[in-house]
Amino acid sequence: MDLTALRTANPDHWTKATAIRALTLDAVATANSGHSGMPMGMADVATVLFEKHLKFDAANPTWPDRDRFILSAGHGSMLLYSLLYLTGNPEITLDEIRNFRQMGAKTAGHPENFLAKGIETTTGPLGQGIANAVGFAIAEEIQRAQYGKKVVDHYTYVIAGDGCLMEGVSQEAIGLAGRLELSKLIVLWDNNNITIDGTVDIADRTDQVRRFAASGWHVIEIDGHDPAAIDAALVQAKGSNKPTMIACKTHIALGHAAQDTSKGHGALTDQGQLLAAKAAYGWAHGPFEVPAEVKSAWEAIGSRGAADRLAWEGRFAQLSERKQAEFNRAYAFEVPGKLAGALRAFKKQISEQQPKWATRKSSEEVLKIVNPIMTETVGGSADLTGSNNTKTDDLGIFLPENRKGRYIHYGIREHGMAAAMNGMALHGGIRPYGGTFMCFTDYARPSMRLAALMQIPSVFVMTHDSIGLGEDGPTHQPVEHLAISRATPNTYVFRPADTVETAEAWELALTFTQSPSVLSLTRQNLPTVRVENKARNLTAQGAYVLAEATGKRQVILIATGSEVEIALEARAQLEAEGIGTRVVSMPCMELFAEQDESYRRKVLPAGPVRVGIEAAVRDGGWDRWLLGERGREAKAGFIGMTRFGASAPAEELYEKFGITAAATVAKVKELLGS
Amino acid sequence: MDLTALRTANPDHWTKATAIRALTLDAVATANSGHSGMPMGMADVATVLFEKHLKFDAANPTWPDRDRFILSAGHGSMLLYSLLYLTGNPEITLDEIRNFRQMGAKTAGHPENFLAKGIETTTGPLGQGIANAVGFAIAEEIQRAQYGKKVVDHYTYVIAGDGCLMEGVSQEAIGLAGRLELSKLIVLWDNNNITIDGTVDIADRTDQVRRFAASGWHVIEIDGHDPAAIDAALVQAKGSNKPTMIACKTHIALGHAAQDTSKGHGALTDQGQLLAAKAAYGWAHGPFEVPAEVKSAWEAIGSRGAADRLAWEGRFAQLSERKQAEFNRAYAFEVPGKLAGALRAFKKQISEQQPKWATRKSSEEVLKIVNPIMTETVGGSADLTGSNNTKTDDLGIFLPENRKGRYIHYGIREHGMAAAMNGMALHGGIRPYGGTFMCFTDYARPSMRLAALMQIPSVFVMTHDSIGLGEDGPTHQPVEHLAISRATPNTYVFRPADTVETAEAWELALTFTQSPSVLSLTRQNLPTVRVENKARNLTAQGAYVLAEATGKRQVILIATGSEVEIALEARAQLEAEGIGTRVVSMPCMELFAEQDESYRRKVLPAGPVRVGIEAAVRDGGWDRWLLGERGREAKAGFIGMTRFGASAPAEELYEKFGITAAATVAKVKELLGS
Repeated sequence: MDLTALRTANPDHWTKATAIRALTLDAVATANSGHSGMPMGMADVATVLFEKHLKFDAANPTWPDRDRFILSAGHGSMLLYSLLYLTGNPEITLDEIRNFRQMGAKTAGHPENFLAKGIETTTGPLGQGIANAVGFAIAEEIQRAQYGKKVVDHYTYVIAGDGCLMEGVSQEAIGLAGRLELSKLIVLWDNNNITIDGTVDIADRTDQVRRFAASGWHVIEIDGHDPAAIDAALVQAKGSNKPTMIACKTHIALGHAAQDTSKGHGALTDQGQLLAAKAAYGWAHGPFEVPAEVKSAWEAIGSRGAADRLAWEGRFAQLSERKQAEFNRAYAFEVPGKLAGALRAFKKQISEQQPKWATRKSSEEVLKIVNPIMTETVGGSADLTGSNNTKTDDLGIFLPENRKGRYIHYGIREHGMAAAMNGMALHGGIRPYGGTFMCFTDYARPSMRLAALMQIPSVFVMTHDSIGLGEDGPTHQPVEHLAISRATPNTYVFRPADTVETAEAWELALTFTQSPSVLSLTRQNLPTVRVENKARNLTAQGAYVLAEATGKRQVILIATGSEVEIALEARAQLEAEGIGTRVVSMPCMELFAEQDESYRRKVLPAGPVRVGIEAAVRDGGWDRWLLGERGREAKAGFIGMTRFGASAPAEELYEKFGITAAATVAKVKELLGS
Repeated sequence: MDLTALRTANPDHWTKATAIRALTLDAVATANSGHSGMPMGMADVATVLFEKHLKFDAANPTWPDRDRFILSAGHGSMLLYSLLYLTGNPEITLDEIRNFRQMGAKTAGHPENFLAKGIETTTGPLGQGIANAVGFAIAEEIQRAQYGKKVVDHYTYVIAGDGCLMEGVSQEAIGLAGRLELSKLIVLWDNNNITIDGTVDIADRTDQVRRFAASGWHVIEIDGHDPAAIDAALVQAKGSNKPTMIACKTHIALGHAAQDTSKGHGALTDQGQLLAAKAAYGWAHGPFEVPAEVKSAWEAIGSRGAADRLAWEGRFAQLSERKQAEFNRAYAFEVPGKLAGALRAFKKQISEQQPKWATRKSSEEVLKIVNPIMTETVGGSADLTGSNNTKTDDLGIFLPENRKGRYIHYGIREHGMAAAMNGMALHGGIRPYGGTFMCFTDYARPSMRLAALMQIPSVFVMTHDSIGLGEDGPTHQPVEHLAISRATPNTYVFRPADTVETAEAWELALTFTQSPSVLSLTRQNLPTVRVENKARNLTAQGAYVLAEATGKRQVILIATGSEVEIALEARAQLEAEGIGTRVVSMPCMELFAEQDESYRRKVLPAGPVRVGIEAAVRDGGWDRWLLGERGREAKAGFIGMTRFGASAPAEELYEKFGITAAATVAKVKELLGS
């Protein structure tokens, strides 16, 4: 590249973009780790985007009507941190830049949304950002339809790399965005033809422009170092009635000895080469030094949107008070006051009527109460609407012709669904839930983990939660998936035993503001076990005594979900033989673990034999409750799965795998006798 | 559709295809569950494929040079079972068809490779088959390069549905196959425009033909009910120098009242409609009845390849004895005799030299021994070759111009990599291993589970296995991933503590024939802890006493991988204070669980305080060993992670999260004192 030509053609632009490159070089070299090349390659694109297009007010990074900027290629985090620092983000100071990748810094190796305002999402696992962005753009459309263009009218910009586009989830995102005609989604592809292992074409020769076009996107190809071309492309993109992908031909590690090489992707720490690159840029400043006039120019960009924001506040104030409150409540993830009463009334009715429903059906009945009260819920399913029972009639289908629709047909895209849900939650103002079969936790898993890491309350509705699904067989029967979600930090896994517990689980999931929930729901019908009405949410304690022993308590049966019925049956048989048996329903291990020790000891006193019952592997967090947290508390056994399932009717599978009242009674007697 | 026209135009073809439709209708109706519409829609395509193109010998379904037929749209399993039964597969009898989806039947809800020969792979989770198929086609190319066209020369055919193509993994497969120019891979897309939730276009309007073409595929569009067009397309596809996608426009549930509807996707069980469909077909036969002449015509197709197979056996016999033995050994997943000795010598050398290597580096050193001895290994990485240390110089890169290459640059496609690896193992003759960061287990997870379910020995090389990776931060730091793989049935998870254990783990992984392995390897350097040379593979017992207490044994420290070093340090401190401390290294919990009870009790006797140390969540199977399998065995504690990690240098993270010798000593004292 002829840097001199670039520099002299657009000196003001060049200086601003070079500030990003220089800060990146210094921060990575100081940390002695990180990724230098991407920010250096995309500095021109980002500079034009921030200078001329991005609607933002650096001093108020959470202004709801800001444009969203998603760095999908998260390893290039210094691009984002440089932009935040330069434009005047209050949290990303020069000290933070100096502390890049160090303990306690907000400038983590990859962008972490929970560390500083202005970091819209956590990226690093490739493809997540572009898939989140679909959710951001959906959220904007729905909110615009709900509140009007005067208060919601912004774009979602994404910088994505070759890695993002090679990950399968990108296809799910591209297909969904194309179909939904998310015209305010603009993807800037860093087309540098370099990955860690070499040039892109050692592994891929996909014509990305043609690929995006095949899914209904507007596509533009430009030189990613030409400010005028970048600007023109963005103008064109904003005017399109389709989502736009701008292919930006760039040079990774521009101007460095490692330019256009895999080495340039990583940490460029050689001091001589660093200084040579700065010299080539015409950047005669020390480490981390940005001349005052350059900083001022960037800060002017950062405050460019302040007037817009003020004007927006005026328009927002013109909304009715009810609308303002609703908007603010949704952004705060607050639950409307009347939800609790409505659910209490529902529980009372259920305890009286005692329906035999599958908990997926129970969930649908709960949603019929929730959705009309909470206008911010957005439901959906990965092409299993009738099986997941996630749709209620009032929602309407979200489509280009119905932007008020709050139900999304995600297609056969579990991963893309979970990522888009996360994007909606991150955007703000939306409470997303989405369904698939629990076994396909596997497909959605990368985004489910990120929901937990990002501290957002996405609700994953996982139906067909055991061998109880029957004939579809082991590919569809979860065995280890409760364990997987329970092992994940900051994730609440609910496995309700009946309709009452399902209502309680939903209430809790909707109350969380910083944690995702997984609802584990059955395909098969279950009896109502909560026949005595309690206004209080018993699920909130994670586990509770559902049926007490009569006479001396010799046994505690602990069960979840569909196996609570089995525990009650086993108890009846044991009690008939004079063996006092308590049944503990444990719909949420995480919440039980959060109770104080005295409550936990009350529910699970030391002494009696304990048997856990769950149609899943014991590894799913059971031993802590069966054996006691420090051991030595009880003799214990477990009735569950130790292998993959099989294809057969559900009842036969329960018999085959010995998850029955009879097997439970036998296990109890074995433990009592030994 | 005008069925009469179809029927009269090609009466022989029609009758054969209708046998598939009729069997499907009967089997699904009898099971009262399943998917009728797909087999009814794709019967014409499948009939032409089997009649005129597929090289197979029904009586010998594992003949190595057969064409492979992959039903990626696995819910349409009755298509496969009908074809196997009709052509004379020895295991799929009429009784099996009658027992569709019942306990013990080989005709499970979705095709299960381990239930009958002739079922090439397990499908059902959508997109897996097409992604497996890439591995099948790679395996064919590599084996053809190794053994010559006379003994290896076959095609891989795939039937994929709209769901397969919407799943992200399909893009990874399409991109990889296009780049690698896998010209013997032919995908037949069941283009019926129907999914469970409605027409495809409620969720997707991707032009699939254009999409495949963008990734370098040959594309053809046909009427999927026109036998001549199907035949012509297959002829053309076989002649292409690219992989081919044939878009077959079909009618789901052809001829049934539910034709072209979502209802047609599922179980069509209405007897009146069933009989009406059969009448429309001109099929006047009872349930499960296939007239003798139709069965004979199909059996003639099934035996069409017998002569080919015999001729092939003659050609195979012309290979040198060494080559024959190598071919057969690889197909049997047998390890060459000399591997054990080579690894013993390596271990001896390591115990003497005591290098301080990261176990990813140790793994590379082991592969330098393995790969030259085992010509069937095929390695690769999802664009992290230099980080995963999966490449050895002798392998060569697999590319169109180098079909002998045994190393695959999979690109940034963890899921596609794992699925392709599975395909290679299923094809036979190849032992695949592939690497990524352990955190990206999440991306590869759907295929890792299937490796376990399918009982194939894929080896997943997962490096950067804890917070020890440092600055990249929590998106890249596995915390729950050991737990995830350990909770998965039929999966061996190895977390070696040093180079010696890494060699032992590799030896075991390569010895398995029916189970996948996960190797959990460090980024950071570790000391050699196995300083005393033992010829025996101690890792084979899963756990063993690495350092014994001197004096009275009060404490047992159990650790894995990088934390064994910490356990040894803690032991030194405890012993110095007169507290007798045993250190147990536990590189593989699953193997330890398989040992007899007396060995397990010898390693973990009841009594002494136990503390587990692993930089991961305790849920990862620990409590069984810490608390005892039935409880009451020991007071116990755990030093590990309870939350996501953070971005900082590795040593600081170990301090921050309290995974240190000092914390271990403190925990021991707390337990001893309490």
